[in-house]
This record gives sequence, C-alpha cells and structure tokens, in this order.
Amino acid sequence: MKAVTFHGERDVRVERVEDPRIQHPADVIIRVTTGAICGSDLHLYHNAIPGLLPGHIIGHEYVGVVEEVGSQVTAFRKGERVVGAFHVACGRCRMCRREAYNQCEHGGVLGYGIAFGDLAGTQAEYARIPFADTTLRRVPDGLTDEQALFSGDILTTAYGAVANSGLQPGETVAVIGCGPVGIMAVQSALAMGASKVFAVDLVRERTDLAEKLGAVPVPSGEVNPSSRILNGTDGEGVDVVIEAVGGSPTLKLAFELVRGGGRISAVGVTAEDTFAYPLMNSLTKDVTFRIGLANIHRDMDATLALVRGGRIDPTVVVSHRLPLSQAAEGYRLFDKREASKVILDGSL
Amino acid sequence: MKAVTFHGERDVRVERVEDPRIQHPADVIIRVTTGAICGSDLHLYHNAIPGLLPGHIIGHEYVGVVEEVGSQVTAFRKGERVVGAFHVACGRCRMCRREAYNQCEHGGVLGYGIAFGDLAGTQAEYARIPFADTTLRRVPDGLTDEQALFSGDILTTAYGAVANSGLQPGETVAVIGCGPVGIMAVQSALAMGASKVFAVDLVRERTDLAEKLGAVPVPSGEVNPSSRILNGTDGEGVDVVIEAVGGSPTLKLAFELVRGGGRISAVGVTAEDTFAYPLMNSLTKDVTFRIGLANIHRDMDATLALVRGGRIDPTVVVSHRLPLSQAAEGYRLFDKREASKVILDGSL
Amino acid sequence: MKAVTFHGERDVRVERVEDPRIQHPADVIIRVTTGAICGSDLHLYHNAIPGLLPGHIIGHEYVGVVEEVGSQVTAFRKGERVVGAFHVACGRCRMCRREAYNQCEHGGVLGYGIAFGDLAGTQAEYARIPFADTTLRRVPDGLTDEQALFSGDILTTAYGAVANSGLQPGETVAVIGCGPVGIMAVQSALAMGASKVFAVDLVRERTDLAEKLGAVPVPSGEVNPSSRILNGTDGEGVDVVIEAVGGSPTLKLAFELVRGGGRISAVGVTAEDTFAYPLMNSLTKDVTFRIGLANIHRDMDATLALVRGGRIDPTVVVSHRLPLSQAAEGYRLFDKREASKVILDGSL
Amino acid sequence: MKAVTFHGERDVRVERVEDPRIQHPADVIIRVTTGAICGSDLHLYHNAIPGLLPGHIIGHEYVGVVEEVGSQVTAFRKGERVVGAFHVACGRCRMCRREAYNQCEHGGVLGYGIAFGDLAGTQAEYARIPFADTTLRRVPDGLTDEQALFSGDILTTAYGAVANSGLQPGETVAVIGCGPVGIMAVQSALAMGASKVFAVDLVRERTDLAEKLGAVPVPSGEVNPSSRILNGTDGEGVDVVIEAVGGSPTLKLAFELVRGGGRISAVGVTAEDTFAYPLMNSLTKDVTFRIGLANIHRDMDATLALVRGGRIDPTVVVSHRLPLSQAAEGYRLFDKREASKVILDGSL
Repeated sequence: MKAVTFHGERDVRVERVEDPRIQHPADVIIRVTTGAICGSDLHLYHNAIPGLLPGHIIGHEYVGVVEEVGSQVTAFRKGERVVGAFHVACGRCRMCRREAYNQCEHGGVLGYGIAFGDLAGTQAEYARIPFADTTLRRVPDGLTDEQALFSGDILTTAYGAVANSGLQPGETVAVIGCGPVGIMAVQSALAMGASKVFAVDLVRERTDLAEKLGAVPVPSGEVNPSSRILNGTDGEGVDVVIEAVGGSPTLKLAFELVRGGGRISAVGVTAEDTFAYPLMNSLTKDVTFRIGLANIHRDMDATLALVRGGRIDPTVVVSHRLPLSQAAEGYRLFDKREASKVILDGSL
Repeated sequence: MKAVTFHGERDVRVERVEDPRIQHPADVIIRVTTGAICGSDLHLYHNAIPGLLPGHIIGHEYVGVVEEVGSQVTAFRKGERVVGAFHVACGRCRMCRREAYNQCEHGGVLGYGIAFGDLAGTQAEYARIPFADTTLRRVPDGLTDEQALFSGDILTTAYGAVANSGLQPGETVAVIGCGPVGIMAVQSALAMGASKVFAVDLVRERTDLAEKLGAVPVPSGEVNPSSRILNGTDGEGVDVVIEAVGGSPTLKLAFELVRGGGRISAVGVTAEDTFAYPLMNSLTKDVTFRIGLANIHRDMDATLALVRGGRIDPTVVVSHRLPLSQAAEGYRLFDKREASKVILDGSL
Repeated sequence: MKAVTFHGERDVRVERVEDPRIQHPADVIIRVTTGAICGSDLHLYHNAIPGLLPGHIIGHEYVGVVEEVGSQVTAFRKGERVVGAFHVACGRCRMCRREAYNQCEHGGVLGYGIAFGDLAGTQAEYARIPFADTTLRRVPDGLTDEQALFSGDILTTAYGAVANSGLQPGETVAVIGCGPVGIMAVQSALAMGASKVFAVDLVRERTDLAEKLGAVPVPSGEVNPSSRILNGTDGEGVDVVIEAVGGSPTLKLAFELVRGGGRISAVGVTAEDTFAYPLMNSLTKDVTFRIGLANIHRDMDATLALVRGGRIDPTVVVSHRLPLSQAAEGYRLFDKREASKVILDGSL
Repeated sequence: MKAVTFHGERDVRVERVEDPRIQHPADVIIRVTTGAICGSDLHLYHNAIPGLLPGHIIGHEYVGVVEEVGSQVTAFRKGERVVGAFHVACGRCRMCRREAYNQCEHGGVLGYGIAFGDLAGTQAEYARIPFADTTLRRVPDGLTDEQALFSGDILTTAYGAVANSGLQPGETVAVIGCGPVGIMAVQSALAMGASKVFAVDLVRERTDLAEKLGAVPVPSGEVNPSSRILNGTDGEGVDVVIEAVGGSPTLKLAFELVRGGGRISAVGVTAEDTFAYPLMNSLTKDVTFRIGLANIHRDMDATLALVRGGRIDPTVVVSHRLPLSQAAEGYRLFDKREASKVILDGSL
C-alpha cells in the first residue's frame, strides 16, 4: 500500500510499504478513507520526537472502514465505518477502569515512534488499530468522514480540556490560542454552557473565525488581553482559562486572566521542562491548574453526539483537502502556516 | 398606588391600595418597572389557592428600581435596577446554607396569600421585597427589563429543572410541554450542552417556536411521541426528560420516553395528590425522578449570565405588552390562551 | 460436577450435572471456592421467578479460581483468584460505555432462569462466567474469599444505593431495613462520609448489629422511627434515606423521614407494580427518588478497596458456613430466618 | 479587657486594651471562652507578616458567647455559643454567592494586621466579629468548646483540602506533613471515604498519632516515602496527595507520590514566590494541582456535623491547655515545638 513515512527533518514521503496485518487478536485493520495532519505531527516533521526512525508511517487522525477484525474483537465487523482515538487504550487495566484512558498501562500513540509504543500511523491506505474495541467508535449515521474525524483527536482534546476545567453553565471562559484546537475549545465551551468565551490570538484571522462561532475576539496584537478581559468580566477575570498554545508566556497570561477561585486547563504542548508556577499568588487566589494530554476515549461519544446534533461544527478549521499522494505538500503548507488544517482524502 | 388585586374567580382588578412600606429591616421597597403574568397566577385566577383573600395584591414576576432600603440591607442602594425571585429566602437558615432556598425556614411566595407567607404581590406600582439581600439581583449592564425579568421566575425554573436532572454535555433531552416554561427548558438544555432536544406539545405553534430555537419538534397531536423519540435516539429513549405540564398522563409519558438509567425532572404543577409510580419497571430501568418547585436563588446568577451572553433569549415567549391598568384584560387573554405571555409594563 | 439446582417451591437439591464449558470466546470457567445464598435467591426458592425451569443451577454470589479462559479474554489467566458481579455486562455497548452496566444490552443475571438470560448459576463446583473481562475482578492480595465475596453482590448493591443518593460528607442517613444489604448500607454510608446513620428495623438484633458498626439504632418495634429521627436531626429529617426492604409501607416511611430537598435511594425489591407517589408533597419538598437494581461493575473496585483498607467489614453478616453439599439446609435456615447469611464453602 | 498583643519578633504580651465595640451593624461582639494558637500565628511571632503593627491583638481560633449584636445581624442572639471562621466574608458579593468565601471582595483575616483588613484578633477576653451572620456558626448541642473550635480554622482547612481534591470513596491518599493540619487531613480523608491514607512526616510521634487514627505511617526519616507508597499502592502511587508543609521539597515529593491522572491539593504555606512546576512530566501524567487558602464558610457545617457524629476528633492534636494570661508561654512552647497545639482557655 501507499503510506506517508518519515525520513528526517521536513522530509516526509509517500511511498510503497507493506500492508498492515493483524498482529494481536484485539487488532482491527481499517481502510483509511479520510485523514488529516495534526499540529502535533509538526513535531515529527521538525524531527523533535526521539525514537522516530526513518521509514516509520506517521499520522493519527483517521476515519475508515473496517477490513479485518482480530479474533478478540467483539464490537466491530467488516464494512463498518469507524473513527478512532489517536492514542490506544486496552480498556482493561486499572487506569482504563477509572476512565483514565490516557494513562493506560498498555497505551501508545499511533505513528509516533518507539517511545510511544512503536505503532504505525494512519496516513496510509490501510492501518492497524490495536485494542480496537476500546479505541474505535462507529461513525454515527448522517455524519460525513470530516465531521466525525476530529472526535478522534483535536475536537475531543479541546472538549476534554473544557470538561477538565469543571466548567459550570453561565461561567466565562478565555481560550488562549485559536489554532484548530483553540477554535474547537471555543465551540466546546459554548456548547457546554459558557455564557461568554474570549478568544485570544495574535492572528486576526483566527480571532475572526472565533468571533463568527460566537466568541468575543481578543486579537492580542491589537489589544491587551488582560485589560480587555478584565473589562469584559466586570473586573473579575474569567472563571476558566483554556491554554492551547504551550509554554511559559501563555501560561503566565493564563494566571493573569483567571479570577480568584478559577481554573486553568492547559493542553498546549511545550518543550519546556518546568514552569515558574506563581505559588504565593495562587495560594491567595486559590487557583486550580491542570495540564494533561487528551483522554479521548472518555469523551469521544459526547463529541460525536454534539457534532451529530449540530451543536459543534469541527469542519470549520479545514483549509485544504489533498489526496494522500500529496501529503508532503500538505505538511509543507501546514508547516509554513499557509494551511490551517489539511485533510488527506483517501478517495482522491 | 395602583395594584392588581384578587376578588374571586376570574375577578382581578386594578385599584388604589396603600403604598407598601418597610416592615422588617431586611426589606426593600422597589418601584416596579416591568412585570408579567405567570402561568401559576392562573391558579389564583381560578380561585384554586386556599387562603387567598379578596383584596390581596397578586403577581410575582418583577423588575424594578430600589426606592427604599431597610436598615439590615447591605447589598442594594436606592436607584439600582433589580430583578428578584418569586419566592423569598432568608439566606441564613440551615436550608439556605445548603443552597436549598426553596426550603427556606422563613420562606414565602409573593402574592400568593396566607398559606404562602401572606406577602403582597408585585403587580403594582411599588412592592415590598423581604430578605432583599438574598432575593434580589442587580440587573446586569446591558440587559433590558424584559430580558432580566424571567430570571426571577420561569427561566430559572426551567433552567433549574434541567440542572436538577444532572444533564451531561452530549446527552439528549425531551421537554414535555412547550408553554413558556417548556420553551425556556428547551433553551436551557441547549445552552447547557444537550446534543438534541425533543420538544413535545399538542399545540403546533409551540413546537414550531421550539424548532426555531433549535429543538426537534414533536407535535404530539400529529405524531406518536414515543415512536418519534425512540426513533430519534437510535431506539434508546432520551437521557433526560423535563416534564413541564403536570399530572399523571404526562408523567406516564415521561417514563416511556426516558432510557434505562435516565432521569426525569418534573416542574409541572398538578392538583393530583399521588401518582401511580411505575415501581417494578423503574427498579429494572434504574430511573431517577425528581419533582420540586424552583430554587431560584441558586441559579439566578447563571441564567442572568446566559441571557447577558446571548445564549438564551427569554423574551421569545412574550406575546402581549399591556400597561398595568389593563391587567384584567391581560389575565383574560392569558386564561383563554389567546396570549402566550403577558408583560405588564409599568411605564405604559 | 455437583451443583445446587432448582426443582420447585422450597425444593433445591445438590445433584450431579454436566461440567460447564466455554460457550463463547469471552467466557471464563472458574472453580468456585466460596459462594453464598443471597436474599434474592429466596425469590427463586419461593418459585416466584417466571421462566425458572426445574434443573436450573442457581446462585450468583461467588469467589473462585480461573480454570479456563476463552480466546477473547484478555484480563485473566488460569489460576487467578477472582470475584465477580451477579449480573454480567458486555462492556462494549452504549449502556456499558456510559457505565450503566445494569442496563447492558447483552446483560443477564447468573442463575435466574430464562427471563434473565438463561445463565447457569454459581452454587456449583464450577461455573461459566460470560463477559469475564468486564464481569470479574482479581481478588486483591490479602483478602480472604469471604471478604471479597460480597463486592460482587450485596455490598456493592448497598454501596451503590448510597452512591446514587449523592451523599455528601457530613450528611445524615437513615437506612430502612437492616438485613444484610441494610447492614452494608450502614457501613457504606459511614465509610463515604455520613456524620450520622440511623438504622431502622423491627428486629432488635439487626439494629444492635448496626449500632455496633457505628449507627444510631432505631428499633421500629419499640420507638416511632419518624419521631426518633426528627429528634435526632434537630427536627429536620435526614438528608438521605436508603430503602432496603421493598414495598409501599417502607417507601412511605422513606418520604416521612427525608428532609426537604433530600434524596431517597431504594434498592428493596417488591412485587408491587406501582406505588402511590406523594406527588403534591414532593413538589413542595423537592425530593429526589431513585429505585434501581445494582450497578455492580461501576462500583466493585471501590468496595474492594474499602474492604482491603479495613474501612468496611462485610463478613459481619455471616451467620452460617456450610459445605456446598448442605446447600438445601442452608436455604431452609435462611428462609426461616434462622440464618442471617449462609456461606457455601467449596473447600468443606 | 486583657488581650494578646504583638510587639515584635518573639514578643507577644498579655496586656490591658480597650474593649471591642460594634463598629458596623453586621458585627457581633463575643466573649471568647476558648481559643488556640494556630501554626500560622507563628508567622506573626517571627515578625514575618508585613503590616502587623505593635499592639495589634492577634489570634483567630475562637469559640465564644455572643455578648452584643449589631443591628443588621439576624442569625444570632446574645447568649448563644458560637464558633467562627478565621477569615471573614460578607456573604453578598459575587465571590460569596459562588461560595468562594476565601475570595470575598470585603474579606479579611482576624488578627493579621493591616494587609489583611486590619481586624483585631481573638486571643482576648472579647472580640469583634465582622459579617457575623456569615462568619459564625452556633456550636451544635453536645459539643464542647474544644470540639467545635477547630471547625473555624485548621480542621476545615484540612477538610477543604481533601474536598478540593475531589476525593472519591475507595481512593488512596498521602498526607505530607502531620502537624495539626496534616493530622486533621488524615481524619478528614478517612471520614470522606479514603480506603487508605499514608501519613508522611519526619517526626515519628506525628506518624504514630496518624497511625492511631487509622493511617499507614510513613516516617520519612526512616523509610523512603516514594518506595513505601508505591509499594503500598501496587506500584501506582496514590490518587490524591494533600501537601500540608509548604515549599518546593514537599511539593516535589507530592508530584512523585501521585499516580497518573491524580490530584495534588496543597495547603502548606510558604514564602517561596514560585515553584518549578514539572510541566513536561505533568503533561504526560495528567495531574491536577490546586493550592489555596481555606474556604472555611463553605465547609464549616460539614466539619461540625462530622465532629458531632463522632467521625472526627479534632482534639487529639491538643498538647497544652493554658489560661489566656500565659499566652506568651504558649507561643514559646509552640515555637520550640515543645507543644503540638496550645489551647488558650478563657475560663482558667
């Protein structure tokens, strides 16, 4: 089959590789019908992931059709349309039984190399999905591939960040960073009961899109986000901050924007090992802070239901649709920020 | 001053009465700028409330301006615009400290006669509001009287019914009864994260309005609600039913519509003393049932925030705006169902 | 092998039957080391379960050792000690994904006949456990069979009833009925933060046992439970009632004992089809009512942890220990209330 | 009257000062019957609190009898026994309405000088309590002064730290630091459903006391706490860490002890401005971190109920009982760690 493989910094290629096959009885093989390039794939592209060897198939956003099922798979049958999580989880261990699927004792991330379980990725014609019963969901009737696709990754990441904040209906939210994850955090927060969502980003097009979706735009190149948000919350700050950039400057901003007793939920990935946590200030302000990778399996059913009910439209972030064969071009555009989100269409 | 007073079945009059005055140091006197006739006022109109004596001032939906404050009032000052709860709560007793304000040991309902604390109502030029610090809220900047008005009664009643159900984002909801409370339950459920809301009513105009607001209309005169809703939930039934009619037939329907493990939250008022609860069936189905009067003080801040943020528009239910002097005509129209909701405008 | 089989009213026999075998790849065969007779087994004994045919193996409280695993079983291996739920759940369907395991689309109850999935019971030398990955748990190190046993049934039933009530630390609880389930509800409520638990029963020995475990005894043959409990709660009634008898009289009592805004969680099984729910009274009192079968899979890890940590001792209810061969005598004693709980010991 | 006043580092004196009087209509004057020296009073003693002027009356743990009530006070009457929070809260502002009393817009700390609202302390014969309706509670019948005392400060601080962690019944907890707050965290965690509590401290007597109360002792001078706790949790780490020391070393330890997906709730006060938060590690581990001052008003009713029900005994930490006149000696002993907790008895 054809697949997108890694070969070094900014060097990804579509090449012929061996077809995947069932390796474990809990596996499913799917024919990938739609995929996408994720922001975290750029870390691969920049050769920043240790243990990623040349030739590894990359990618982890996927919708497909079940081709073959292992003997332990009970929930799926050949021919069913499925969407799946970017990370896999066994569903049996102590962590999974607590619904802490992102802490699964046997987990891994698709297409991320040796340090993440050495699992081939999904930017390919076919892909092997381990622990398929837990990791996959049937695409609900009436949803297109693109509508379902992001429930396996960035939509549910964004939704989970909001869920982790304990958002109560009527509360106010600031989303820092309006890339694809941030845009979905805006939509999730509104769908989950926020009375007002401030969308902070340096790039005007991004805050414009957020505004169209119902947020109050805070173009941080033009206005001071702290002043703007204090002003828009009667001087209090927001109840919840979703940090979707990563790194100290935006984390610091998050602590500025949150009200006393508020919560910060961070999903932005960073290479910084530590952050100078404002301890004294937080002691007085009684702030809750959580940073963590997405827990897709926990929330995937909820996001699929919200998309199906028309409450969230994740496709608004898509800027480009390319055939799998042009994946290298897709990475280039995405890396240069000429594309906001690239779909890799298996049917093209 | 002028006020709407009760004089027997279908006999309400606007007449001159004495101005209210501070009776207790926790009282506030407000000049009522906007009021409305509530569905529950029709019980008065039908002379169905024991202990309601002729001459009693009725009404309990109100927005106004503070005219005078008692010596114990700390949160309000003369001249502030306020909206208040239809029932009063001391804020100090064991029940209030648990946020069970509708169980306040010193509570009462405005304009409902002796059995409810003998408190004069608010369909008047002026009104006395006991326990003002707890019972009133400042109208947030930017909200009109009509936008704020329903947070003191039917909007927060509807919202509270949804909150009491423990609705989780992504769940499905059926609202039985699309009068003003039902319509606001539809809006609340959507604002709080429902993926899909089914709006059930015999009257086509009502389900049409619900549809405009985002619900799936279930005109129960034309389609069987059980079949329609089972069908629309992949055969499961809804996660949550909001019963907003009152009485056995709609309660029975609620038990039909709810899925196994689901919740029924009822706010419909009925004269029936008991209901034949489907015990055996619920044992297997593991259903949670709650019926209770609204707990306005608990949720008023949340609904005001949602209205202010544009997430809920409670004014959609208003069909008529009359001056206070035409209150009798307002009651007549509302009783004949020629009006869906009558505003009594203090400025007219 | 030998097994306890049903043959009609008050006629159970230990007889030779065929050994169970793997019928489905998700099955496990266990050698039963310890079992017990459950209160609900008395319904069988009284021939009150439709669809229970002569010769059916009964029983559903069990601890054992894994003998054989089906090809889809991933969590268990031959030789491991396990305890399991009395009902089985697939772990894959929509209901299981919501943790509503008692509503599983493929569920059933062990040893309860055709109407409950036609699954052979566990009062036998060997038993087949369907959906073993979901239904079984390893017995934690350091626990005896008897300590683990009840986490698969009555302890987790009682615990779940308390969990379903939404008990908050510091609240008061009344447990109506102090049979084995009630006694475990007393222990669960105390372990989960109740400040005070009232234990109501007609039988003095039962309230004595509850008192020894930390409850306030309310022997309802000697004192009026309503007066006693109002008195013991500063005139309010309790926050939570656990109804563990079944039927209208104790349900009525539950509504008397609960405070305004409180919750009633019922697990008592009854043959009554309906209950005259106090609608009007509950509307004012804002009571939440839930009745439902246990959801063992959801809470089994928690109860095992609490037993292991010494916070709950479920073995206090055991009055008799008999070899499997004397099961008929065990049923007789239990039915006559000469035994409070009968262990069937596979090693005797 | 006599009162304990501050005069510089390690210089506190009992001297004659003016009696307090009602300054605001929401005030109450109490006659203090029992008080205590709090660990945070040692910060005063070390002259580490900016804005604390010589002559300021200190202390904030108190039980007393109401002597005089301001005209806005509705909940209390002369002669009632009361316990109160160490910080005051208006009960009316936006923060208080959210139950974020520790963020009250008009709050302050008793006896902590200018930077904390310039409120006289309670180590005195009489004390003025602002916002008395919100800040005080009646001492429940049957409780001694000492039993009630700590609900206004360290017991509820410890309880709140556990509550903030979202502890679920059956979970495991590590408490770092077994001074008075830590000991009460141990008791709170057990009362709220922990299956196992590890009590970590360098001082053997402290872990011995914790053990007597039901904890697993981890004397960190003798055993490595990480190994011990990993070992005692089947290699996972605990679900919840309560950090009750303050400062980077114990915070670092907290991150070592917590399992993936777990929560750290910190109440230890420190002078460090920032902490090197393990960002990268937490991203993978999905840890929630909260540090904040106690929110006494929110939880005081719960802790009083738990003490009254015999579930928590806060008096176990008391080592010395001195008359108010010997307060200076009390501070000396406490500062030298010769006393674990000093009661100042107004009756002596």
